[in-house]
Amino acid sequence: MVSPIEHFVTRSLGTWTAQRSGHNLAFRHVEEVESEIRIAPVAAEDPQLMDLLASNNVAPSAMCCPFSVTWQGTSDWDENATSDGSCILVPVPEGDTTGRLLRSQGYTETIPAVGRYRFSDDGAFVLVTPYERASAEERVWFATDDLRLRVALMRTSSGRGVLQASFSSEIRQRSA
Amino acid sequence: MVSPIEHFVTRSLGTWTAQRSGHNLAFRHVEEVESEIRIAPVAAEDPQLMDLLASNNVAPSAMCCPFSVTWQGTSDWDENATSDGSCILVPVPEGDTTGRLLRSQGYTETIPAVGRYRFSDDGAFVLVTPYERASAEERVWFATDDLRLRVALMRTSSGRGVLQASFSSEIRQRSA
Repeated sequence: MVSPIEHFVTRSLGTWTAQRSGHNLAFRHVEEVESEIRIAPVAAEDPQLMDLLASNNVAPSAMCCPFSVTWQGTSDWDENATSDGSCILVPVPEGDTTGRLLRSQGYTETIPAVGRYRFSDDGAFVLVTPYERASAEERVWFATDDLRLRVALMRTSSGRGVLQASFSSEIRQRSA
Repeated sequence: MVSPIEHFVTRSLGTWTAQRSGHNLAFRHVEEVESEIRIAPVAAEDPQLMDLLASNNVAPSAMCCPFSVTWQGTSDWDENATSDGSCILVPVPEGDTTGRLLRSQGYTETIPAVGRYRFSDDGAFVLVTPYERASAEERVWFATDDLRLRVALMRTSSGRGVLQASFSSEIRQRSA
């Protein structure tokens, strides 16, 4: 029997073409970002993975299906600027539908981050990651096997305000 | 004790400034629509409401908190064109967290529509409305009391394909 997190990571593997609409709620403008996202498994003996486990005091036996995310994107704000990067993500299950997610690098700050995930009753992966001055709340789910959707909120530390909301539709690229 | 649907409708009452990003998945382009949305209660003796109940063979005692939605929007595709309209929506609860939603007019076709709603375990209102050649799936939830989010998918009738995905962030307008 495959666990929900293993099922979710397995479905996510591959290369995706993503369109992200970022809504800045205070200034009420929208930024469009197109990117290519590659999600791949990471071998248990990968040095960067072993470092990440060690720095979080997590035993290799406690993790499940570590993976890497590599992205390259262009924004409609500045078409000459591309953003790219990659990080390693490591689920550390605590129950069947909850756990921690270690990241070698956060999306919004360039320091390692640890989030908490859970699966909702309709199968969505819900992740909350606290940062120094804000917290990120993400909901990722599959509309079909080849269409992954993501809503991300950036909350103020208190959790009462939302600075930014974004929506991504990610379409799986077919291999030729 | 207020039911989930009554709670949801009550929180939704007011005037909202909405930003919608529509992702056309086949052609991979994005349309931005700004609109103002007003959500107001409808009196039980409203003639249009009574017509809607009668045409659906629903007794007035079976409905809960009928409301109207009025919108006026402008798209970045054609700034001279405004879209506006209004419809009456009538929840007909079947259980504590499920029911039908009658509409005097659908969002995508100009004929009356009946959808089925349920609340997910994290409090989101999830609505599926079948149309003649497609079905609409909407998820609406509150990020804060003054920020309502909506993800809408337009699926092919078979349910296997998704034609369009859209995301709306709706900010409550403060009365002066």
